[in-house]
Amino acid sequence: MSQVERIGVSLDKKLLSRFDKLIAGQGYQSRSEAIRDLVRRQLSTEQLSNPDAEAVAAVFLVYDHHSTKLTEKLMDLQHSHILQVISSIHIHLDKHDCLEVIVMRGRVGEISKMGENILSLKGVKLGRVNFVSSESD
Amino acid sequence: MSQVERIGVSLDKKLLSRFDKLIAGQGYQSRSEAIRDLVRRQLSTEQLSNPDAEAVAAVFLVYDHHSTKLTEKLMDLQHSHILQVISSIHIHLDKHDCLEVIVMRGRVGEISKMGENILSLKGVKLGRVNFVSSESD
Amino acid sequence: MSQVERIGVSLDKKLLSRFDKLIAGQGYQSRSEAIRDLVRRQLSTEQLSNPDAEAVAAVFLVYDHHSTKLTEKLMDLQHSHILQVISSIHIHLDKHDCLEVIVMRGRVGEISKMGENILSLKGVKLGRVNFVSSESD
Amino acid sequence: MSQVERIGVSLDKKLLSRFDKLIAGQGYQSRSEAIRDLVRRQLSTEQLSNPDAEAVAAVFLVYDHHSTKLTEKLMDLQHSHILQVISSIHIHLDKHDCLEVIVMRGRVGEISKMGENILSLKGVKLGRVNFVSSESD
Repeated sequence: MSQVERIGVSLDKKLLSRFDKLIAGQGYQSRSEAIRDLVRRQLSTEQLSNPDAEAVAAVFLVYDHHSTKLTEKLMDLQHSHILQVISSIHIHLDKHDCLEVIVMRGRVGEISKMGENILSLKGVKLGRVNFVSSESD
Repeated sequence: MSQVERIGVSLDKKLLSRFDKLIAGQGYQSRSEAIRDLVRRQLSTEQLSNPDAEAVAAVFLVYDHHSTKLTEKLMDLQHSHILQVISSIHIHLDKHDCLEVIVMRGRVGEISKMGENILSLKGVKLGRVNFVSSESD
Repeated sequence: MSQVERIGVSLDKKLLSRFDKLIAGQGYQSRSEAIRDLVRRQLSTEQLSNPDAEAVAAVFLVYDHHSTKLTEKLMDLQHSHILQVISSIHIHLDKHDCLEVIVMRGRVGEISKMGENILSLKGVKLGRVNFVSSESD
Repeated sequence: MSQVERIGVSLDKKLLSRFDKLIAGQGYQSRSEAIRDLVRRQLSTEQLSNPDAEAVAAVFLVYDHHSTKLTEKLMDLQHSHILQVISSIHIHLDKHDCLEVIVMRGRVGEISKMGENILSLKGVKLGRVNFVSSESD
């Protein structure tokens, strides 16, 4: 079991009442939970700014499945040695387009580089690389 | 078959040579392809700023699978009526934490709202909502 | 004088020690101060997602001061009626380029629209609109 | 005089017509101008991801001018040796709060570090560091 510590935070009353309204609208049950999430997100953002940090990422890409050889090239990239592709999911968007979400683990810098390579492939229409830090608290 | 039009663009030589170097590094085979991607990304960004636009999104969340009832609550949310969850993928990160990627279709505003609701659930440690526009060219 | 309230937040010990390290590196003197900043930034981000919210913004633009009539067009835009330009600052970057920072007050949506208009002017090379929420706590 | 080169770009007709509509709404007079801006922004974004790149930045901060010694601390930071503060602008937002925009030149990494230091000062309520690349085409 992880240990929990209780800390005190001083906040201006008006600021606090605006925060309470915001987090109630977002569905939070308690201030503690909402503040924990702010802290975690801040740490995660910080961590992901380091190219050597370990991360989990999902690459999104929209592509035309008629594009010659794109599917093979994607497979090749997914089997590259540096990054470990964990899983991928394929969704039919319409007659032409597919959405593929590829979840991988690796260093931030390497994943970014691979992301750029995927997005530059002929036939890939849109793409984005999204990181989640892998180091848990 | 979609029709293609050829347009001319005037660019400063120095700007062009910096662009050529950048896109070569990213793996592009041609300027045309790289510029098409810039245009598509711009249109997509614009479209996603409209809360009523149709979009496909993936919600990422890292959570502790020991959290009481979180799994049921996530299921409930995924079966809500407004949004259509297309698919989801579950990955074991370590002894405690899971990564779940939930791909859904809906309006930008509704997806954002649902995203906030998911992230506020007790036990969800990190999360992010990522959009891809669904309207193809 | 504004009133201050003290609240308690429970945080996992490991999470807290990572946060302490991060904020020490950023120069914070206390956790309370760092958490207040997270709360304020969250409220500000939320507020700025509403196109009708009052905001203060700075438009940055890099432009070639040899561009015909750009200076006049910028002046015209700055004297438009809807937005209140508070102040502007002009910096010589090199032989050709100037940086202008225009600080204005207005609604988020109107400022964004004006920003797009400025960035589309012939001769403007780079630009960005940056918001700061105007509603203080 | 800088030399201009004309290149050809092939675009799907539907994509082109959506792009034409978007840029007309933003106020662009020609496609060439709009595409040049996309190219410049892409190069700028790329450049600013390198911590060693030279950049011009503006630090925004909202602070309570009653805060003890904040003004002196800000002055000290602005006169640090590594970064060259070019100019700053001070705006009265309301009875308590001021907005200060500090324009500086330096390396991306150093500016980021200084930005964090400023934002962590007691009395600074909100802040943001915004970069513009300094290398012109």
